[in-house]
Amino acid sequence: MTVYLDHAAATPMDPEVTKAMLPYFSDAFFNPSSPYAPAVTVRRDYDAAKVRIAAILGAQAGELTMTAGATESVNLAFAAGSGHVVTTVIEHQAVLAAADRSDNTKVAVDAHGRVDPEVIRNALQPDTWLVSVGLANNEIGTVQPLAKIAEVIRQERAKRRDEGNGQPIYLHTDASQGVGQIDINVARLGVDLLTMNAAKIYGPKQVGLLYAERGVNLTPQIVGGGQEQGRRSGTENVAGVIGMAEALARADAARKTETRRLFDLRNSLLSTLEAAFPEMVVSGHPKHRLSGHLHVSFPGIDAERLVFGLETKGVLVATGSACAANKGTRSHVLTAIGLAPDVADGSLRLSLGKSTNADSIAYAADAIIEVVGKEMRRVNR
Amino acid sequence: MTVYLDHAAATPMDPEVTKAMLPYFSDAFFNPSSPYAPAVTVRRDYDAAKVRIAAILGAQAGELTMTAGATESVNLAFAAGSGHVVTTVIEHQAVLAAADRSDNTKVAVDAHGRVDPEVIRNALQPDTWLVSVGLANNEIGTVQPLAKIAEVIRQERAKRRDEGNGQPIYLHTDASQGVGQIDINVARLGVDLLTMNAAKIYGPKQVGLLYAERGVNLTPQIVGGGQEQGRRSGTENVAGVIGMAEALARADAARKTETRRLFDLRNSLLSTLEAAFPEMVVSGHPKHRLSGHLHVSFPGIDAERLVFGLETKGVLVATGSACAANKGTRSHVLTAIGLAPDVADGSLRLSLGKSTNADSIAYAADAIIEVVGKEMRRVNR
Repeated sequence: MTVYLDHAAATPMDPEVTKAMLPYFSDAFFNPSSPYAPAVTVRRDYDAAKVRIAAILGAQAGELTMTAGATESVNLAFAAGSGHVVTTVIEHQAVLAAADRSDNTKVAVDAHGRVDPEVIRNALQPDTWLVSVGLANNEIGTVQPLAKIAEVIRQERAKRRDEGNGQPIYLHTDASQGVGQIDINVARLGVDLLTMNAAKIYGPKQVGLLYAERGVNLTPQIVGGGQEQGRRSGTENVAGVIGMAEALARADAARKTETRRLFDLRNSLLSTLEAAFPEMVVSGHPKHRLSGHLHVSFPGIDAERLVFGLETKGVLVATGSACAANKGTRSHVLTAIGLAPDVADGSLRLSLGKSTNADSIAYAADAIIEVVGKEMRRVNR
Repeated sequence: MTVYLDHAAATPMDPEVTKAMLPYFSDAFFNPSSPYAPAVTVRRDYDAAKVRIAAILGAQAGELTMTAGATESVNLAFAAGSGHVVTTVIEHQAVLAAADRSDNTKVAVDAHGRVDPEVIRNALQPDTWLVSVGLANNEIGTVQPLAKIAEVIRQERAKRRDEGNGQPIYLHTDASQGVGQIDINVARLGVDLLTMNAAKIYGPKQVGLLYAERGVNLTPQIVGGGQEQGRRSGTENVAGVIGMAEALARADAARKTETRRLFDLRNSLLSTLEAAFPEMVVSGHPKHRLSGHLHVSFPGIDAERLVFGLETKGVLVATGSACAANKGTRSHVLTAIGLAPDVADGSLRLSLGKSTNADSIAYAADAIIEVVGKEMRRVNR
């Protein structure tokens, strides 16, 4: 039996997504900028896919720039202005690296990985033009109070207006980890810019978007033929964007039932593990956390040994985010929430998804109990 | 009957390429940075695809940065330095736009669209760090004397060494239009940087690469997780790169026979059209031209009417490059080679490919003769 519990790192493409994409590989393969009817149909299908995506975001298609993934989207968002930016210490590498290209403040989070909107307020400077806070953390699953942060931004705008400070300020969120589990209507989130990708919602890899509300002037990073209204040149990824639309529509339609289902499965796994290991540390916010996420630490245990031990039983889990996992460095997120090194180093990220069910959770729980137990006995021998 | 003669704008994915990609959609979908064996296998397959591509270029896999297409690759190449750049007036929009981000000289070409290496030499300044010349022009198919331009660059390097000028200088080529018809071994071409994509060789859209020889320090445009050796972050496009490797291997294996085949078919079409329309203007170099390319102009005729007239007969052709086609502007390439406006505006680009055969060429020739003839009679009425 193989139990995949690393949906936060990658998801398999839904066969229905593949089915939606296939016609655009060898049949409707035309360049959407070509003038003849079959190409115009491709253009129309591409545009329709953007409209379909935009509707789920509560946005206009013209506010979307299709990219090669969340990392490119984040970079495009951060290139939209200059001056000071505010973000948090637990963001994805893409946000941290993009922020480091300019003057920035990375605010701390609490022990649950949540950022206090007042801490954001206090970090604002007169030339702060961007605040970037991830919707949900990719390691510990904590969901941020974006609506409240948006309120802080609105108050800052009012304050600047009163003070005659003409510097605009925008709120960006990398929603990559939240899509499919959290409502991503941009008005309800209160964001001006939103990054997401298809790879985390059973869609194709290297397909993403940046939503930017009409008032934001994006500076193109990739120039050329002027596609995506001049914001990002290059022949359009027709199949990829159509696949993303299909994936997002499916994720959105199933969101409420799937969130509930994952919530129950995750909690069942959590209870079983808590009963077996009273010393186990659970990270992430107890309430404001992705339903499919479970981050647990076994103090004094080497998580990499656990990952390989679990793999022999067919259970695939992560020690942290896939990006950091291969580099042998300790997670900046776990350090930021104050986990001691010997706790952080014994951490597993278990992320559930569509293939997860009661049977696979029961199997995984047994495997984890056996492998962790064995490792504990080995260490304490 | 549908006869597609716009292979320079887009090519259908080879079913064998689709077949090579499919396992990586829903089965081997793992994040290549994840630690467990199935993900390590994905990483190995991805790396093997890069090795396979590199071998055809005569390069090392570590010299390749995989991107979302030729436009991104060109932008990455132009970001590798600062100072003066030299390019030609007939480059693709991506090169022209990237060049315009810095001090640049765009040299003229002759009436066949060929650049004289001596003209490149004369355009070099002491701070010129990049010369970028497309391998083959996407509109008129003219192939540039890259090896001779490379010799100019080598001489400039020697001169700088003698003069104590430490400014490096590199030769970049956008080979997107030549792959599959021209040998793209980087040593034989004499280039330091090479851009290509998969979409023009029956591979997936939005997959490309930048080759940069070891000595070139690329400056990442997209930062984050540090993929592609830090040069271009974002979870790897596993299926896309594997598809590109398959497409390139097939293009390379078939190159000589396919080039010969297209050459004969193109010349047959050309002879038929020349016999029917003595006033027809043929552009591009008579000898140094892509075998599958044919660019013809009918003075005084509106090419857009021809495109739509031909479409009713199932013959799909372009007025120019797909990027410019939709914008209603006259091609900068045709202006550069000195075509009078009334000649340029009556131009068709016919680009042959794998699906082209003697029957389809005969059918297309008949259709073109009929549609152009009818349009000529209408105009002269």
